[in-house]
Amino acid sequence: MADELFAVRWVGADEEGGPAVRLLDQTALPGRSEVLDCADVATLAEAIRSLRVRGAPALGVAGAYGVVLGALVDGDADKAAAFLSAQRPTAVNLSWACRLVAAAGADVDAQLAEARRIDAANSAACTAMGRHGADWLRERCGGGPLRLQTHCNTGMLACQGIGTAFGVAHTVHDDGRLAQLWVDETRPLLQGARLTAFEAATLGMPHAVVPDAAAAALMSAGDVDAVVVGADRIAANGDTANKIGTLTLAVVAARYGVPFLVVAPVSTIDFATSTGADIEIEERDPDEVRTALGALRLAPDSSPAHNPAFDVTPAELITAIVTELGVVEPPYATGIAGLR
Amino acid sequence: MADELFAVRWVGADEEGGPAVRLLDQTALPGRSEVLDCADVATLAEAIRSLRVRGAPALGVAGAYGVVLGALVDGDADKAAAFLSAQRPTAVNLSWACRLVAAAGADVDAQLAEARRIDAANSAACTAMGRHGADWLRERCGGGPLRLQTHCNTGMLACQGIGTAFGVAHTVHDDGRLAQLWVDETRPLLQGARLTAFEAATLGMPHAVVPDAAAAALMSAGDVDAVVVGADRIAANGDTANKIGTLTLAVVAARYGVPFLVVAPVSTIDFATSTGADIEIEERDPDEVRTALGALRLAPDSSPAHNPAFDVTPAELITAIVTELGVVEPPYATGIAGLR
Repeated sequence: MADELFAVRWVGADEEGGPAVRLLDQTALPGRSEVLDCADVATLAEAIRSLRVRGAPALGVAGAYGVVLGALVDGDADKAAAFLSAQRPTAVNLSWACRLVAAAGADVDAQLAEARRIDAANSAACTAMGRHGADWLRERCGGGPLRLQTHCNTGMLACQGIGTAFGVAHTVHDDGRLAQLWVDETRPLLQGARLTAFEAATLGMPHAVVPDAAAAALMSAGDVDAVVVGADRIAANGDTANKIGTLTLAVVAARYGVPFLVVAPVSTIDFATSTGADIEIEERDPDEVRTALGALRLAPDSSPAHNPAFDVTPAELITAIVTELGVVEPPYATGIAGLR
Repeated sequence: MADELFAVRWVGADEEGGPAVRLLDQTALPGRSEVLDCADVATLAEAIRSLRVRGAPALGVAGAYGVVLGALVDGDADKAAAFLSAQRPTAVNLSWACRLVAAAGADVDAQLAEARRIDAANSAACTAMGRHGADWLRERCGGGPLRLQTHCNTGMLACQGIGTAFGVAHTVHDDGRLAQLWVDETRPLLQGARLTAFEAATLGMPHAVVPDAAAAALMSAGDVDAVVVGADRIAANGDTANKIGTLTLAVVAARYGVPFLVVAPVSTIDFATSTGADIEIEERDPDEVRTALGALRLAPDSSPAHNPAFDVTPAELITAIVTELGVVEPPYATGIAGLR
């Protein structure tokens, strides 16, 4: 089953359907598991624009292979890199990976090798984070079965590789120690219910979807051994911006003495941002809150809604930050500077 | 506009459409504001069973007038009382009110007077709670504008009268002091987004719907002056069972020093239950979490879901309990015993 779970794959010219960039269409999940083979750059561009593939690392890999596809099909890697980057202008990983591959030389073989290197480096970072996190948990919580709680989607679908926070749960599961993964549904866009639950089910991990606000009920009952979350941006002092709801989870974890782990690659650390107070929070479309996925109206049209994309968890609520280079504990300023 | 908002009304034989029990059909909200006149007991019974009217106090009033309707239309108050009570066997208020009205005498006028008395007593209790709560907030937070946060639906639609926690916000609004009401959407059944937002919009109260997990983002930013919630059951020591998510909100409020008020009539206090540890939590249908209102699938069919109906907030997280008889502050054991 695990082999069926992926975000992006390269299908070579010598393979059936190749050359193509193969995606698992995330807009069809969890209802349908549809594979989409993009045989030209325009099809891949549409898929990126429509969020059929999403998540910073996965977008980088999709872009990387997309540039190779452009070189093979249209004979123009630079044009493909510019066109694909323009589909999600704020996705830094996408333009970064496209640029690297296009600059790898005029030779398509060299470009494909560079794309494969980006893909492999990404996976290796996830695997390392998973291992570091699982080992830290063994040291902190002992060698028995673990009940973890997570928020949003940080697995294979977002990250390629096994993921960040989800990758830790995945590694604990591979170690035979995962007793339960509590999956926050993650309103408003429900990435937990839709995507993380799908990944956990596909991988055969013991799990259950919970309403976000059930966190205190679970933790006060002693049903959570540790919380693992990803990060959108980590400041130099350890303050962490992540999906809305992360701070609420951290506050509840602190009250009930549950370790709270942030899991993210070193590239997530913004050394130029000294504290979380300098991180601006994007306000998203209120209709995301007034509806369920745009498909079902929940609140009156006339009711305003507040829809911050992220919140900032202060370093004091974070027990440890897990990166591919190792685990950093407080005081974070020192530990984070050491990763630079 | 405010006059349009109601849960239940008696329409006399001399009025157009009467005799009937008039309901605002809550299953159509917030999309449509539909008035349903139940001219016979069977129609009202269906409405109660289908949750067109819901909330303990509102059910009591609906049952009370329903017994009068049965006496008028079928000449049998006792039969109506038994039949209506059986529609929601666990709704204690419903059977209590039906019994009172049926026992008020064979005279329909006496029965109607008893039903009107129950309705008026209910409204008066709500009005008193609203006043006590608003006055307490003035004393605690000062006379300036207030930003309140609430959970679930505790207003007119649930309570008849102005409501419990919502009634406090309503009273603060009538006093011209409500700057904002943050309405938790209240997953999984979204009573906040659907019903509380509808009431706030109808009453012209400044408000915004927020995802439940945004609580810490709001409170850490200093955007909430006090939290007001209702209660399903209050133990003798002040521990309070209420809609899932209440405890999470209380934990967050405690961390950020935001006063946390429980607002409920004295009838909610279970003097025989000494602490919250004795309150059993009902586990509801997992499909409520896996879907949005049964209409839109969110999580995979194969994913388990955890759906506790309530959580229990310990007394130490509650700043005050507001009843129709006044406000009780810690130590609760003493204050609550005084309400007996």
